[in-house]
Amino acid sequence: MGDSRVDENSERAMAEEVSRAVELAKELQDSAASIISRNSNEEDSLRQRAQSLDSNIQRLRSSIKKANFDPNQAEKLEEELCRAGYLLGEGEAAAFLPSKSHGRFLRTFLGPINVRATRKDVQLKVKEEYNSFRDRTAFLFLFFPSLLLVLRSWIWDGCLPALPVQLYQAWLLILYTSLALRENILRVNGSDIRPWWIYHHYCAMGMAVISLTWEVEREPDCAQKQRGVQLFLQWATMQGVAMLLQNRYQRQRLYTRIALGKARRMDVVWGETAGVEGQLWLLCPILFILQGFEAYVGVLLLKTALAGVVSEWQVVTCGILLIIMALGNFANTVQTLGTKSRVKAKVKRSKSKQEPHQGSVTKNL
Amino acid sequence: MGDSRVDENSERAMAEEVSRAVELAKELQDSAASIISRNSNEEDSLRQRAQSLDSNIQRLRSSIKKANFDPNQAEKLEEELCRAGYLLGEGEAAAFLPSKSHGRFLRTFLGPINVRATRKDVQLKVKEEYNSFRDRTAFLFLFFPSLLLVLRSWIWDGCLPALPVQLYQAWLLILYTSLALRENILRVNGSDIRPWWIYHHYCAMGMAVISLTWEVEREPDCAQKQRGVQLFLQWATMQGVAMLLQNRYQRQRLYTRIALGKARRMDVVWGETAGVEGQLWLLCPILFILQGFEAYVGVLLLKTALAGVVSEWQVVTCGILLIIMALGNFANTVQTLGTKSRVKAKVKRSKSKQEPHQGSVTKNL
Repeated sequence: MGDSRVDENSERAMAEEVSRAVELAKELQDSAASIISRNSNEEDSLRQRAQSLDSNIQRLRSSIKKANFDPNQAEKLEEELCRAGYLLGEGEAAAFLPSKSHGRFLRTFLGPINVRATRKDVQLKVKEEYNSFRDRTAFLFLFFPSLLLVLRSWIWDGCLPALPVQLYQAWLLILYTSLALRENILRVNGSDIRPWWIYHHYCAMGMAVISLTWEVEREPDCAQKQRGVQLFLQWATMQGVAMLLQNRYQRQRLYTRIALGKARRMDVVWGETAGVEGQLWLLCPILFILQGFEAYVGVLLLKTALAGVVSEWQVVTCGILLIIMALGNFANTVQTLGTKSRVKAKVKRSKSKQEPHQGSVTKNL
Repeated sequence: MGDSRVDENSERAMAEEVSRAVELAKELQDSAASIISRNSNEEDSLRQRAQSLDSNIQRLRSSIKKANFDPNQAEKLEEELCRAGYLLGEGEAAAFLPSKSHGRFLRTFLGPINVRATRKDVQLKVKEEYNSFRDRTAFLFLFFPSLLLVLRSWIWDGCLPALPVQLYQAWLLILYTSLALRENILRVNGSDIRPWWIYHHYCAMGMAVISLTWEVEREPDCAQKQRGVQLFLQWATMQGVAMLLQNRYQRQRLYTRIALGKARRMDVVWGETAGVEGQLWLLCPILFILQGFEAYVGVLLLKTALAGVVSEWQVVTCGILLIIMALGNFANTVQTLGTKSRVKAKVKRSKSKQEPHQGSVTKNL
């Protein structure tokens, strides 16, 4: 049947090329399959070794504590165990330690996909990107509410229009959702972020949704009725300043860790703590003032609701949420500071222990 | 200094155990590091091979089309190339083909984490879970709006209260966000989902946020003013029924693919298409009716806004969004049906081509 002008040679050459491609595809498929299955076997065995070593270290640590050893000797042993734990937890082997569960939040939004990175440099990149995301958003976090407040007194005659406020609230919702997702991912990748800071972002997400349903504008007495919104915007402006300070603090800690990751680890933590001590004394009062103001806004909201000025359920719920967040933030900041000073006291006694909750004082966005 | 009761033997034994643990940690660290670096080298080389084979197959395919070969021979060659492409794209080697970019949406919400699974069975599990998530939510998607409509006429005297409607809207927002995230993850993992269905969920997310800011209750004439909400709820009820049908259809396709994944592939697609043909004839009219109703609700919203009954910007925006979604859904459904029938015609001519856009007709939630 074929066309008479067909060049049989080129047809044959093409047929050869095609069957070579099929051959190559088969080979590639075979080597991919064998490499993947070999890798997953090797990873399983590494996982077992890592897990048994981890539980062994824990067992030894607790029996040293219980035993009645010479204090100097016990301290030396603990130091060595710390080193083993550090090698296991911070090195390449960490990828094979059992991962923290992904948690309900991630499973709901992402499904059963694994978000844990195997390579340490990828994990550090994720953390680095999280910090630069916080940096970028901190400026907006400061900018948007202050813009609204300035426009309110300059242009809008003390009455905020609904649309810009709602756009701001929608932006807050996106921001908090994104932060909650990213923090859950960091946790799965081995970050020691305190669970409260994640719950805190769930509360903030809830508040953003609720505030969207909240009627902003009510013509008569708008200055009185918008008191809650106005207070919230003022608090958000202060929060923006605190975020910028926090980010600087966090970033310095991370850089120090990366830079010294290859050096001795014990130097890292103490060097860090010493280096940022001055900033912590600036940060802490600001954090406490913010938390106080947060609770104050919450109480004011409850008062306006009880006084019957604005009697919607949203006002009451937002008030309660703000008070819960303020209390939780306060409790967690105090706990972290307590841990830090306990650690520092220990360091003064001996220069060889681990700092348990690194940097979590600064995670209360 | 030490305590006199210390048992020196047990101290020495403990010291040995501790130094063994340190030794083990070092070994584990070394083997983890070497395995991880070897793996990433091997994966790089597999990636290169897969990429060059992929471009080679594409080149051969286009030169066969251009060349003036005997039609039978050309078809045979194309068939072989299809087989090579299938081996490459559907087997274990697929993990090493360049991945689709994560996209702005995923990067905003998740940061730079990799959500691509290497193993085929994990990818299929992700898809499977996505389908069962759709199943679970389809019932709620049917249940919530019908409950609201029933309560409206039975208990609420034709006037919907704000809170239940807003709870429903918040649920919609969570649902659409989760679907958009999961579909982006599926796309990264090699699903051929049409981009429109993902954009569609972005529109739906926007609409859910906007509808949250929308005042539901306005005492006088509430029946007239709530006409938009009521129509939307009716449309959502119909949507729930369509989702249940769609999920059945999708699920059967997936099961067939998994079951025949180990068998010859060409059987899969045709077997599948034949098996669900009856359902597609039930599904298509329902989809078109839904799309018409969606556009109708959009137009009605615009009309109420223009008539001045409810003049908020939210009404206009939601109306426009609904019309855009209806038009986009319609265009994509028609395109997919067109592709399907072209493929079927091709199959009738020769039983050896690939079906390009599998199942995407059913992804318009």
